[in-house]
Amino acid sequence: MVVVMQPGATGAEIELVCQTIEEHGLEVLRMPGNVMAIGIPSAIPPDLRDPLQQKLEILPGVSKVTQVSRSYKLASREFHPSDTVVTVGGVSFGGPTIQVIAGPCSIESYEQLKAAATAVRSAGATVLRGGAFKPRTSPYAFQGLAVEGLQIMKQVGEEVGIRTISEVMSPEMVGVVAEHVDILQIGARSMQNFPLLIEAGKSDHPVMLKRGPSATIDEFLLAAEYLLSHGNSKVLLCERGVHPLDRGYTRNTLDLSAVPVLKHHSHLPVVVDPSHGTGFARYVPAMSCAAVAAGADALMIEVHPDPRHALSDAAQALTSEGFADLMKRLQAFAAAVGRPLSGTERYAAAN
Amino acid sequence: MVVVMQPGATGAEIELVCQTIEEHGLEVLRMPGNVMAIGIPSAIPPDLRDPLQQKLEILPGVSKVTQVSRSYKLASREFHPSDTVVTVGGVSFGGPTIQVIAGPCSIESYEQLKAAATAVRSAGATVLRGGAFKPRTSPYAFQGLAVEGLQIMKQVGEEVGIRTISEVMSPEMVGVVAEHVDILQIGARSMQNFPLLIEAGKSDHPVMLKRGPSATIDEFLLAAEYLLSHGNSKVLLCERGVHPLDRGYTRNTLDLSAVPVLKHHSHLPVVVDPSHGTGFARYVPAMSCAAVAAGADALMIEVHPDPRHALSDAAQALTSEGFADLMKRLQAFAAAVGRPLSGTERYAAAN
Amino acid sequence: MVVVMQPGATGAEIELVCQTIEEHGLEVLRMPGNVMAIGIPSAIPPDLRDPLQQKLEILPGVSKVTQVSRSYKLASREFHPSDTVVTVGGVSFGGPTIQVIAGPCSIESYEQLKAAATAVRSAGATVLRGGAFKPRTSPYAFQGLAVEGLQIMKQVGEEVGIRTISEVMSPEMVGVVAEHVDILQIGARSMQNFPLLIEAGKSDHPVMLKRGPSATIDEFLLAAEYLLSHGNSKVLLCERGVHPLDRGYTRNTLDLSAVPVLKHHSHLPVVVDPSHGTGFARYVPAMSCAAVAAGADALMIEVHPDPRHALSDAAQALTSEGFADLMKRLQAFAAAVGRPLSGTERYAAAN
Amino acid sequence: MVVVMQPGATGAEIELVCQTIEEHGLEVLRMPGNVMAIGIPSAIPPDLRDPLQQKLEILPGVSKVTQVSRSYKLASREFHPSDTVVTVGGVSFGGPTIQVIAGPCSIESYEQLKAAATAVRSAGATVLRGGAFKPRTSPYAFQGLAVEGLQIMKQVGEEVGIRTISEVMSPEMVGVVAEHVDILQIGARSMQNFPLLIEAGKSDHPVMLKRGPSATIDEFLLAAEYLLSHGNSKVLLCERGVHPLDRGYTRNTLDLSAVPVLKHHSHLPVVVDPSHGTGFARYVPAMSCAAVAAGADALMIEVHPDPRHALSDAAQALTSEGFADLMKRLQAFAAAVGRPLSGTERYAAAN
Repeated sequence: MVVVMQPGATGAEIELVCQTIEEHGLEVLRMPGNVMAIGIPSAIPPDLRDPLQQKLEILPGVSKVTQVSRSYKLASREFHPSDTVVTVGGVSFGGPTIQVIAGPCSIESYEQLKAAATAVRSAGATVLRGGAFKPRTSPYAFQGLAVEGLQIMKQVGEEVGIRTISEVMSPEMVGVVAEHVDILQIGARSMQNFPLLIEAGKSDHPVMLKRGPSATIDEFLLAAEYLLSHGNSKVLLCERGVHPLDRGYTRNTLDLSAVPVLKHHSHLPVVVDPSHGTGFARYVPAMSCAAVAAGADALMIEVHPDPRHALSDAAQALTSEGFADLMKRLQAFAAAVGRPLSGTERYAAAN
Repeated sequence: MVVVMQPGATGAEIELVCQTIEEHGLEVLRMPGNVMAIGIPSAIPPDLRDPLQQKLEILPGVSKVTQVSRSYKLASREFHPSDTVVTVGGVSFGGPTIQVIAGPCSIESYEQLKAAATAVRSAGATVLRGGAFKPRTSPYAFQGLAVEGLQIMKQVGEEVGIRTISEVMSPEMVGVVAEHVDILQIGARSMQNFPLLIEAGKSDHPVMLKRGPSATIDEFLLAAEYLLSHGNSKVLLCERGVHPLDRGYTRNTLDLSAVPVLKHHSHLPVVVDPSHGTGFARYVPAMSCAAVAAGADALMIEVHPDPRHALSDAAQALTSEGFADLMKRLQAFAAAVGRPLSGTERYAAAN
Repeated sequence: MVVVMQPGATGAEIELVCQTIEEHGLEVLRMPGNVMAIGIPSAIPPDLRDPLQQKLEILPGVSKVTQVSRSYKLASREFHPSDTVVTVGGVSFGGPTIQVIAGPCSIESYEQLKAAATAVRSAGATVLRGGAFKPRTSPYAFQGLAVEGLQIMKQVGEEVGIRTISEVMSPEMVGVVAEHVDILQIGARSMQNFPLLIEAGKSDHPVMLKRGPSATIDEFLLAAEYLLSHGNSKVLLCERGVHPLDRGYTRNTLDLSAVPVLKHHSHLPVVVDPSHGTGFARYVPAMSCAAVAAGADALMIEVHPDPRHALSDAAQALTSEGFADLMKRLQAFAAAVGRPLSGTERYAAAN
Repeated sequence: MVVVMQPGATGAEIELVCQTIEEHGLEVLRMPGNVMAIGIPSAIPPDLRDPLQQKLEILPGVSKVTQVSRSYKLASREFHPSDTVVTVGGVSFGGPTIQVIAGPCSIESYEQLKAAATAVRSAGATVLRGGAFKPRTSPYAFQGLAVEGLQIMKQVGEEVGIRTISEVMSPEMVGVVAEHVDILQIGARSMQNFPLLIEAGKSDHPVMLKRGPSATIDEFLLAAEYLLSHGNSKVLLCERGVHPLDRGYTRNTLDLSAVPVLKHHSHLPVVVDPSHGTGFARYVPAMSCAAVAAGADALMIEVHPDPRHALSDAAQALTSEGFADLMKRLQAFAAAVGRPLSGTERYAAAN
């Protein structure tokens, strides 16, 4: 942390800054030009950084206080240089294989989910997605089948032989969702639902954390830090689009540069969701290929056996055929980054 | 809802659009220029609007589908023309008086809260704020005193004779928080925590809903619609700043134009929080005056008896003296909008 | 500038950082924890700051490079503590009086401008606005009367006895516009038209610089710095709204907190344009009052004698009657901030 | 255009809406539920759309006015279904080949540009970039060599046998820049510099138009419409990143979904600039590959023979070796989209 004083700052004002820093047990380095630095930035306890900055900013004569080190630690590659690999039921995220998660937005019925699961598995997906509890902007929209949906997912997952993921929206539901699915999803609108993060952090179930629609990279990694600091190290980061400049053409702006940024600054696996990221099925194939090219470890794609009759997010779901075509197309991009694509052997055998 | 077809759309494509609309029991109006409209926009059931738009958007030959009516209803002034007044313990929001909510960011101790409550009440505030459960971006920051904090608030509120407000962060805590405070606060990061909205909607406690940092007006009013549609009509809307262009000068961008916009389109009382809205105590007085001038029904202001030793958000808290000065300054602005300021008589008597 | 090295940085990597800094004639301070600071931040030549930061960021072993001082100088209050007052034809901006600039979006005819000028002057405005060259998003929209419009403005200004302001859009037009009007306006979309800034900077005509729709405070003050550093010290800053979260309710988000921020960090007068800032006449009165309460030195308001037949921006123009009402209403807010309102005596006399 | 009236709108209010529409020579369709539509949206003259919407919005009793058709025409694929191919000196944009434009941010000297040109040409680039007039946020930053820079570029282009592109910043410089380079670049901060667009629109030189940092897709295509409607059909669209959520990790947010969106809605070739789009050389390779995967027709990449001594934008420039490596890596992604990469044969021959 560096404190720059105003040009005419008095000796007493400088003294008060030094004293405030020292009261917190930190050493002050006085530099020329009325600048004070706190020695060894990484030695300032993380829980002191923001409060101390704020206390210094309000002192008389202070021009600007700047933090010079990152605010997260466990999520940082500097403290954990090698890639984290999260493995669930034989499916590894963050290793060489590019995994594909696919399935409908909402679980609507056993028949619908079974059809979707069969289709996506045969095309190569290794994890089935589907919402039982749906976060909906409008209270009048379909809210999901709740626990009944989870039971359908558990049954279908076992019958089809595919791992499963579903969203959990409140802390007290973490246990129930974990009993039914392999991976807990924390949605974009829950990224800073701290009681939920703490509860999921105490679980030993893998968690896929989606980036909030206006979350900075720091806020995203600090949300992951909640999970990690409460003991859960099986964390997947998911980019799903940020608040767009306008909503005339896409529902969100898929921030693909977050992929290399997160891979550079963090050791956690990175998933990309081009379905929510764009909101239109017609853009999903291009953005899926681009996500793989950008270095994503996994994709999450909405597929509905019959989008015209879907109960939610019809516009962004691929048909089963569209998804199978996309999986074929992705082979070349996976090859271009030198990584196998999820389900390739199975897929190759089936075709 | 209006569907515009592409220039060369075929008769079969037009037919499929009409058929899709009619399948939902709606009447189609065919207009010149390959445009189809759905009769009586307000007659489309709210839960059909988004799904239907999405289904139409994916049909072949369709150029653009546009919704022409608002997506919220109970929160809308069109359906509830007169102002809603929410009264709690003799304090009315949305009536003539401009109310002032004040107090520390976090409840730190009985002594701290008592000092704050005494100071803000004597300066004219009618509601005491203070966080017991704190949503903190970093897991390493002070997380609040939890239930112990609520008990302190209840005691201090009774001793000082002031109404109270505190944040609730998860659905299962709604009951406990409601037992201790007069108004439930739903924070910005919880604005789309739908299970929490539903639970608070079932309560008969007044709820102050803060706008999310990237929430559009529609998303904000739809979140209020959750509360209203689950039976709770005592809803206050709070503007507290949206995601800023940069964070070099303010923590958020206080969107004061939201005040006249919300007053025009909704009947609910509007509160402004200039402390979070700017993040710096030095800008709070100017923005408090501006909020009153813009038509706000209430202000929410952070006050700490000793900001230099606050455990959270030190930079944005006024001192007790700074708050008393601000209350004096606000008199003239309240007078300019022709409304009494909270605690004026008491304040006038005390000075 | 502070350079934080990665935890495992080698001695050679640290050496290269030090050497790169010293190559630029700057002194290096080595601090504990592998941190290097450059002595006396304000001593780094402004033109070196960004290039040097970029060169250091790409060196091996570097974790983060942070600038600790502001990038503008002449526009900064730290280097020019007292308020700048810009006076044009007896009208002073940045002094005690709150000035009001008013008039139509576009100059459409002599009759229209004369009617507008007469109306706004009799209500108290001291400067007449009106566009001769119109920046229009669509090439199909009305583009203005060009030089003919300027001639009308000059004539009307003289006949009515009111100062004038009009936009200049390209460097080669600075001279022509300056011959016809009292204040040059540089529009939001031209805020980073650097050849235009340089040409206007060489002029001795007052310049009102509008903030770009996504400009940060630093970018805005650096644009002002272009004008100042080329010799023109008569600069007005104008907040006119930034890119909105959505365009469903307002055309822009008027960032009123920019007013106290600019007044704190700069010595230049601050104007607020609530007409473009909101885009709807119905919100202009509330936001005008709020701007005065927030500390604005002047307002710029669109007024059209007949908005229903305006050639541009009809939705945001007040009628002459609406403007006269607003001026009456503003008196109380000007009084509340302890400042006279433009044209008060004249207005008082006329009523 | 569709006008929805408020629930209690009177017959007179409805009549005034109809009359206002008819005054403009348009036919009104009265629909059930107090909704009025204007027949044949595409028949409303483009220059009437915004003004008419604004006039209707201010009428009493009107709830909402919605435009249902796009505001651009010549740039739209609906009116020009086949891809436009822009060919300059044998290099075609928008055809099968993916072109690569490369070179330094600024032209610093003959030696520097010659070295860069030789390096990028031998690695496969077909167009040389380099700024002679530099738009710089700070007036203290290096502003470019101006006409001397253009002369160097012309000479180097001829000697090395490579096409050239450079930025033009004001209308009066269009002719001079066009004499020296093959393609005119209009920068992001000039996207709505309308006099410049008009002048470049009258030229018959190819123009690459960069998207403004907060420009919506509509605003971007309307800026292209300026060029097209003034007669220049050789227009390239360039995505270069939009205003980011924060600047802590990238300088901009590269909006790659704009690539498939633009390809769907427009017929013009699309270029992606990952150098400005991210601001850091380390992210440029990943985002270049992603851009090709997303369907870009060309890339524009900053390359500097010696980034450590560059006069501008050092952090985002690849070295000559880094660029050659990237070109090799891009081969696989070009192959995956089934398109040849610029300079492949030459490159293949040289290696």
